[in-house]
Amino acid sequence: MNIVGVDLGGTYVKIGLVNSTTGVITKKTQIETKLELGNDNVVNRIAEAIQKLTENETYSAVGIGSPGSIDKENGIVRFSPNFPDWHNFPLGPKLSKLLNKKVYVENDANSFVLGEKWFGAGKGKNHIVALTLGTGVGGGIISQNILITGTDGIGGELGHVIIKPHGRLCGCGNYGCLEAYASATAIVKMALERRKKFPDSMIFESNEITAKTIFDAAKQNDRLALIIRDEVVNALAIAITGFIHIFNPQVIIIGGGVSRAGDILFKPLVQQVNEMVMPSFKNSFEILQSPLVENAGILGAASIVLQREKKI
Amino acid sequence: MNIVGVDLGGTYVKIGLVNSTTGVITKKTQIETKLELGNDNVVNRIAEAIQKLTENETYSAVGIGSPGSIDKENGIVRFSPNFPDWHNFPLGPKLSKLLNKKVYVENDANSFVLGEKWFGAGKGKNHIVALTLGTGVGGGIISQNILITGTDGIGGELGHVIIKPHGRLCGCGNYGCLEAYASATAIVKMALERRKKFPDSMIFESNEITAKTIFDAAKQNDRLALIIRDEVVNALAIAITGFIHIFNPQVIIIGGGVSRAGDILFKPLVQQVNEMVMPSFKNSFEILQSPLVENAGILGAASIVLQREKKI
Repeated sequence: MNIVGVDLGGTYVKIGLVNSTTGVITKKTQIETKLELGNDNVVNRIAEAIQKLTENETYSAVGIGSPGSIDKENGIVRFSPNFPDWHNFPLGPKLSKLLNKKVYVENDANSFVLGEKWFGAGKGKNHIVALTLGTGVGGGIISQNILITGTDGIGGELGHVIIKPHGRLCGCGNYGCLEAYASATAIVKMALERRKKFPDSMIFESNEITAKTIFDAAKQNDRLALIIRDEVVNALAIAITGFIHIFNPQVIIIGGGVSRAGDILFKPLVQQVNEMVMPSFKNSFEILQSPLVENAGILGAASIVLQREKKI
Repeated sequence: MNIVGVDLGGTYVKIGLVNSTTGVITKKTQIETKLELGNDNVVNRIAEAIQKLTENETYSAVGIGSPGSIDKENGIVRFSPNFPDWHNFPLGPKLSKLLNKKVYVENDANSFVLGEKWFGAGKGKNHIVALTLGTGVGGGIISQNILITGTDGIGGELGHVIIKPHGRLCGCGNYGCLEAYASATAIVKMALERRKKFPDSMIFESNEITAKTIFDAAKQNDRLALIIRDEVVNALAIAITGFIHIFNPQVIIIGGGVSRAGDILFKPLVQQVNEMVMPSFKNSFEILQSPLVENAGILGAASIVLQREKKI
């Protein structure tokens, strides 16, 4: 069976035709989102792109991972902070009418954890906590094979648990959220703030400082980079220990750009979490790097269909 | 329909006959647990007490809230820290055989949230976070009408989220857990530690210092008592803000001895949580004191039956 997965972003819409058995993306395309043309225009162009992509192909349904708060029953985008005119916008029904196919809509952080469950590091598992460390820190939770989104569907904000009272200022207005320590944005900030104190750090040899610059420097034993790495690890360990005690998950999966740091991040993280969890939780979980990389968005979107229809 | 609820504690076993429609406990009894006599002996005496209580009465099933890790499918107590010989002990099947009735077993913190859902402040709600502030801090979560217990059934340990790195030492061995700030035990400790600095606090006029002593002193504007109250509120606010962002619950219910402090605890707590939650979560939740008081154990145990059979 083929499914179409649509990863709706602020700049690009990525669309893929996914074999639901193998998780292979057999065809892929992307269009610019061009939010400024208005929501109807965006939906029309998504429909055209899907029609073009699926010429001479069959597919059963479409899954869309969208930012913002989603009324999943009705496929409506309630509001989406960076999509100004998408207010109570019937994304699912509109696209469904244009394509004459079933369309399922889900929040993009939630579709990330679904992608991991159906095609990634959470395959076959029913208790998964997923974190995406990117511009922000996104979260998705599957417990007892159910996506945990809460009464208004806005739960799963794992980036906004407070891991340090009076800690770093977060974009949400609170101090000490996980996101203020473990997002790519925060990691870069932590370096820039200390430039005066560590002027010779190799981090500052780079023209464009990213989270990757910093983890690469940590691999070279750069002192500032290691200090930042330790802060990131410590913040993640505190939060993840809490998630383990709350959810007793089989696996904690970490994706997003920051996760590509690999061992320099994961090795000390796994060690610290193992030291912190209560005895009865020892050896009850794994902490894994997301294997889906740049396909996470499309595979996550396709997984929305599988989760809703639970056919496999 | 009548149900028997059994609240299995280390010192006493409380047993009640509960009208499942009204939540009224029509008959009640208690026996000493006497763990030292061995697990079979305890079960035999529980069966006898139930038989005596239900003479000339009908009831459909028994729910038992037990401390420890429970294999709920099979009614087995896997282990229970304070019940040394209850290791893989088939509590449910043994009692079921003696009574010739269905018996359901659940962890006692989980049965607390079930009691709130069926008979308390969470009535009719499907998204509930419950905390019991007693000797320790227990937690129970219902999300999408499902009890969240994780892959081994040991999740829901809401007392062991870390709210302050390098904070107060917790009984679990970590520093800064919620339990190290908001349990009755911790609250009393916080007073005793500061006796030298606040020798004139009215807290120390009492022969036996309990959490109640301290909150009563706070109501009289005792300085030390107010400092402690603020620490408790702050710890709870940080943790609860996180739970709201994670679970997007309709209600957070707080029970256990400490919750009886009432307004002196709840008013500043509600205010602080409202200040801390992200804008999209504003007005999405209530924070309520458990109304079940000393019947919480029996009603929680009876609710296990209702939740498993979901008949009402």
